[in-house]
Amino acid sequence: MNDRLLRAARRQPTDTTPVWIMRQAGRYLPEYREIRAKTTFLGLCKTPDLAAEVTAQPVRRLGVDAAIIFSDILIAVEAMGLPLELNDKGPHLPSPVRSSADVDKLSVPDPELSMGFVAEAIRRARKLLDDSVPVIGFCGAPFTLAAYMVEGGGSKSYIDIKRLLFEQPKVAHRLFEKLTATLIPYLKMQVAAGAQIVQVFDSWGGELSPRDFETFSLPYVSRIVHELQATGVPVIYFGTSMSTLLPQCKRTGADVVGLDWRIEIDEGRKVLGPDVAVQGNLDPIALFLPRVELEARVDDILRRAGPLGHIFNLGHGITPPTDPDSAKALVETVHRLGAARRR
Amino acid sequence: MNDRLLRAARRQPTDTTPVWIMRQAGRYLPEYREIRAKTTFLGLCKTPDLAAEVTAQPVRRLGVDAAIIFSDILIAVEAMGLPLELNDKGPHLPSPVRSSADVDKLSVPDPELSMGFVAEAIRRARKLLDDSVPVIGFCGAPFTLAAYMVEGGGSKSYIDIKRLLFEQPKVAHRLFEKLTATLIPYLKMQVAAGAQIVQVFDSWGGELSPRDFETFSLPYVSRIVHELQATGVPVIYFGTSMSTLLPQCKRTGADVVGLDWRIEIDEGRKVLGPDVAVQGNLDPIALFLPRVELEARVDDILRRAGPLGHIFNLGHGITPPTDPDSAKALVETVHRLGAARRR
Repeated sequence: MNDRLLRAARRQPTDTTPVWIMRQAGRYLPEYREIRAKTTFLGLCKTPDLAAEVTAQPVRRLGVDAAIIFSDILIAVEAMGLPLELNDKGPHLPSPVRSSADVDKLSVPDPELSMGFVAEAIRRARKLLDDSVPVIGFCGAPFTLAAYMVEGGGSKSYIDIKRLLFEQPKVAHRLFEKLTATLIPYLKMQVAAGAQIVQVFDSWGGELSPRDFETFSLPYVSRIVHELQATGVPVIYFGTSMSTLLPQCKRTGADVVGLDWRIEIDEGRKVLGPDVAVQGNLDPIALFLPRVELEARVDDILRRAGPLGHIFNLGHGITPPTDPDSAKALVETVHRLGAARRR
Repeated sequence: MNDRLLRAARRQPTDTTPVWIMRQAGRYLPEYREIRAKTTFLGLCKTPDLAAEVTAQPVRRLGVDAAIIFSDILIAVEAMGLPLELNDKGPHLPSPVRSSADVDKLSVPDPELSMGFVAEAIRRARKLLDDSVPVIGFCGAPFTLAAYMVEGGGSKSYIDIKRLLFEQPKVAHRLFEKLTATLIPYLKMQVAAGAQIVQVFDSWGGELSPRDFETFSLPYVSRIVHELQATGVPVIYFGTSMSTLLPQCKRTGADVVGLDWRIEIDEGRKVLGPDVAVQGNLDPIALFLPRVELEARVDDILRRAGPLGHIFNLGHGITPPTDPDSAKALVETVHRLGAARRR
């Protein structure tokens, strides 16, 4: 198996820099759109054969060093009993969590019973990939999931989730506890099914001030990280706009911290220290640059990151209008320049 | 006149820490909603008597140390010839700028002819306030205004503006040039009408990587800052999610750099150095905290900022559901604790 990604996550030497792309199984790929046309987004998540197929697609087309299981962070929220609608405009949760009673109503589900289709998709993806590259499992971080649950969808000011934190902190902590209790066995199930590394997505973690992050996010993320590491897999912790929270990210104990494009990787490394690997951090829109400029940016990131403990990725998900050839060129460029920098 | 704000902007000693609140003239105030009910948002901006009145309202109710002229950053964009619709859901620009020809069509307006109502509102606000506190003039930064112009409104991924930067950089620079040529005389007009300090709002500046900020934003913001400083007024430069861009913010030459709540002020000061004043940085949603906790957060910010060169503010605009009494308590607390910390 190509184990570059697993080796880089553990800061072991690799022949070149491993690369995968957030949302690599997605709408920018015609072969994804073809399968997606047959069903809904949630239908695709819940049909293991189709989910496994779209999981494998970017490995075939782009030559990335890992496959991330096709799913959605909100699958766990639905399994807790909160109705979920996913469409191309983003998620909508028609019965948002606002009160202590709303939190009481949420269940801590048995992952096999309620999310077994994710495990099955991982098993089928592993078979389909025939051990060519590792499979990444994932979940959302408690704060980010809670933000969706309380806001009822995306948000601009995160006023509802923050009001919950500030006005009803005990209720908020009970919500985070239930989420954490759901997510740990959910990720462990993914590992048992064959995921060789897991990523915790804290997309909205950067909305919190350092003190609020320490109170409402760090303890829960740390628990997830440590419980998963105990199963033997490395853990990636990723968020956006979190550059001022890197000391706290380090304290989660994650093997790898994902960086967005707002910070240069060498600056991030200064805060994270030598024991943490980094993932990132090209601006997803840089895939619209002319090839020669894209190549210069890739090389700059490789130079700043150094050869050890770096997983190349975008700073956030690839966008639907991206040309798949540009994504392919990115992967080829990372592999070529990463190898050149090791000579 | 209460000149605390002007003195703090120049890092001169003050008896206590000055405070104002972004969007302090806004929907959370019943007396604002009463006037707003009489006209549209743009109608309010363009009726000097009404604009002056809502400008003065928060000074009367909250006791803030400055009044910011009631207007909108997109007034300048409309004056350049781009149709603008403003409603409570946010701005909508039905004819977004996408091509070289679209940029050609934009004018560099005479500010007195096209935005004279802003100058008149400032004159009337000055009269209404009777020199009790200074009036803040403002504009949007070229990148942030261009983002609205190209996206046609708010955005999540800023894909259209970034594609313009990456695919047609010359067109982007021509757009930024036209914006800068519009904004400098526009702000100078505001100063001539009586604004004693100005703020440049770069709300989306933090969407850029450090290298793109240096190419597409810094040169234009610097030019605005220096031209305005030449008129004798201090300049505040504010953005969100810009904590990793503080070295670049410093290079704009602004007297004051605004910080959001994502970074502790003392950490920001370490990067900005002793010659730059800071503004901020309470999370706007912290106004929903119980009073005793709000007070603890205010005191922590005052402690971290130190007594010299700090203007207290929120890290972004106050939200409509905020209780005006909470805003009033904030102002009172800043003044009381700021004075206590100087004893």
